[in-house]
Amino acid sequence: MTTRVGATAGRLDAVAAAPDVRLAARTERMRPSAIREILKLTDRADVLSLAGGLPAAELFPLDAVADATAQALDANGVRALQYGPSAGLPELRAWIAERDGGVDPDRVIVTSGSQQGLDLLGKVLLDPGDTIALGAPTYMGALRAFDPYEPRYAPVAMDGEGIDPASLDAVLAQGARFLYAVPDFDNPSGRRASLARREAILETCAKHGVLVVEDAPYRELRFDDVEPPPLVTLAPERVVHLGSLSKTLAPGLRVAWAIVPDGLTEIVEQAKQATDLHTSTFTQAVAYALVRDGALEARFPHLRSHYRAQRDHLVAALERHLGGRLTYDVPPGGMFLWGRLPDGVDAHALLRTAVERGVAFVPGDAFYPAGDGPPEAIRLSFSLLDEAGFDEAARRLAAALDAHGA
Amino acid sequence: MTTRVGATAGRLDAVAAAPDVRLAARTERMRPSAIREILKLTDRADVLSLAGGLPAAELFPLDAVADATAQALDANGVRALQYGPSAGLPELRAWIAERDGGVDPDRVIVTSGSQQGLDLLGKVLLDPGDTIALGAPTYMGALRAFDPYEPRYAPVAMDGEGIDPASLDAVLAQGARFLYAVPDFDNPSGRRASLARREAILETCAKHGVLVVEDAPYRELRFDDVEPPPLVTLAPERVVHLGSLSKTLAPGLRVAWAIVPDGLTEIVEQAKQATDLHTSTFTQAVAYALVRDGALEARFPHLRSHYRAQRDHLVAALERHLGGRLTYDVPPGGMFLWGRLPDGVDAHALLRTAVERGVAFVPGDAFYPAGDGPPEAIRLSFSLLDEAGFDEAARRLAAALDAHGA
Repeated sequence: MTTRVGATAGRLDAVAAAPDVRLAARTERMRPSAIREILKLTDRADVLSLAGGLPAAELFPLDAVADATAQALDANGVRALQYGPSAGLPELRAWIAERDGGVDPDRVIVTSGSQQGLDLLGKVLLDPGDTIALGAPTYMGALRAFDPYEPRYAPVAMDGEGIDPASLDAVLAQGARFLYAVPDFDNPSGRRASLARREAILETCAKHGVLVVEDAPYRELRFDDVEPPPLVTLAPERVVHLGSLSKTLAPGLRVAWAIVPDGLTEIVEQAKQATDLHTSTFTQAVAYALVRDGALEARFPHLRSHYRAQRDHLVAALERHLGGRLTYDVPPGGMFLWGRLPDGVDAHALLRTAVERGVAFVPGDAFYPAGDGPPEAIRLSFSLLDEAGFDEAARRLAAALDAHGA
Repeated sequence: MTTRVGATAGRLDAVAAAPDVRLAARTERMRPSAIREILKLTDRADVLSLAGGLPAAELFPLDAVADATAQALDANGVRALQYGPSAGLPELRAWIAERDGGVDPDRVIVTSGSQQGLDLLGKVLLDPGDTIALGAPTYMGALRAFDPYEPRYAPVAMDGEGIDPASLDAVLAQGARFLYAVPDFDNPSGRRASLARREAILETCAKHGVLVVEDAPYRELRFDDVEPPPLVTLAPERVVHLGSLSKTLAPGLRVAWAIVPDGLTEIVEQAKQATDLHTSTFTQAVAYALVRDGALEARFPHLRSHYRAQRDHLVAALERHLGGRLTYDVPPGGMFLWGRLPDGVDAHALLRTAVERGVAFVPGDAFYPAGDGPPEAIRLSFSLLDEAGFDEAARRLAAALDAHGA
């Protein structure tokens, strides 16, 4: 233990007293994600979780990662362990650029998860008090990423296709730094915007000169053959596109990317360098070995059929045990079902009863910037259980509703 | 290519025009690190680099990483690829806590390089206009990490042991949010603070109620048996300690840590979660397999003798070819030698001549917050060349000085 102090320990008792640490004003806005509390619930072995947003671990390519690591070390040698460029390994950036519509690889910045992409965008775009337009409900992790930059959130109304253009127009007329949008299987709502809706959103943003941040982690988890283009393909100079391997390969690698309009690449790269120099060259090299030569796309049929079957098991269980007591649209992709309890049932109160009965979900207001969502809204995940688990979870949820007289 | 748009491409030309993207005010403070320009120089095959700060790649344990990956996947299974806790894998945090003086593991936050530790501290501690006290010269990457939080830098005078307590006292009397200090083999100066100096620094900070951020990436690269305790051991409630595997194992893993006083752990963990959810579980699991059971400490004798020999080769070459034309203290550890050219020689002008003659170094003013260091200061790295390379580099440097009549 070379860092132990031995005889000198305790010599500086007067010095060791805690200083009066004053936190930055921005920390007033920072709070733990509700995800953290949710994960605690799912740790209990007797609780069936419809709450956690973790991808299905049985789909992680454990053997392929071992092979890819050997390949990455063989192909790169010590380069895989050395410092690397802030924007990412060139071969990985080229693969991303080719995959995402053939964009200029200079526009690709590799990030440590899309969460970091959100942080970097907050850092370079947001002054305190700036407005972010976003659908409500939306991904709570995005709110937590933006919060330290002290924005104001302007919620846009949503319908079955997500962001409503008329509401967006009204919100943007008041001014906004950017629109945050998840057009493919939004977390928590599971909604997908049609091509016409995408065009309407982009036209409205163009009218007001507003940038769009398109977060697309669930894009490849579609359960049908409908695939409207990503916003970035329709309006490359107006959209920052965030892509990720977290849901298609494995989140523990923390490999994702931002495709950035020309005018923003340099400042985002500088922000990335200032923030953590670069994403692990080792994980980038391993990820590249895992995705190259069509290997990522080869995973999609199995991924899609797995999550589709999961969704179908959940929906069947809900129909079987809850009947009409939970209303929802069947999500066409992703990992989540957004439901509404009977009028007058408070999701937080129900959650307490539900956990006692061994099932967990997420109250929907957690996904609203002001926490002011409908008290009846809930998010159910279909990534973690199996068919029997969904059946039992729905049975317990029904029992909890019974206990609430609903 | 599922994300290609085909027939719809080009439909939204009006929409695709670039919006007027206004950047956040803080980006005015952001600029590319001089390191980036330096790396470009070192890319030229005909330039011998005394500039780059990369650790010696021949010391990276390539085979051990392959073995550790197999162990990590075997021991953890899909856990190594799943989302994980924001503060890091418990077993890695416990190893760090035990190693760094037996602190409470709850005080350890795993970060993606110490660069991220600096970013997180800026995020939670700095309001615009706040003062950071720091020795000048100091690590330029720290300035780049703090810049986006718009601090003011208050330079403290340094002597052969680093930060001068009398100057620190005068600076802190004007108020400061924290002191940034690198007491072990500072980059660029290579200086080390004695135990008495450490105590004086901590007493001065205690007098003014100021927190200390102790950045210690080079601590284990010492070339003698002198090892004063880290500041965090002397004053655990006053010091945030940043440790890293980048110089002792491999920087490409991006595994480092912050040891945080009790009162700050929760907010730093929240900032970490907001910034990138967590550091790669995969690299954490691999790193843990690489360091556990004394494996990291087993590397130190070889690391130290390697870098010590490198320093000795550089110093011998400088003596041989430059005589008294470069003045410096022989650094007792680390990777850098801080030198001073003859009076009147401008390091930037000399660098241009030197690169023409095939040798590169870093002008010293890059390491001063205001860029106002002495024009004669330069930093020489001894991590990248071998004995013959140092000899030739020093010969070329001497020729460049000759050309400047110095």
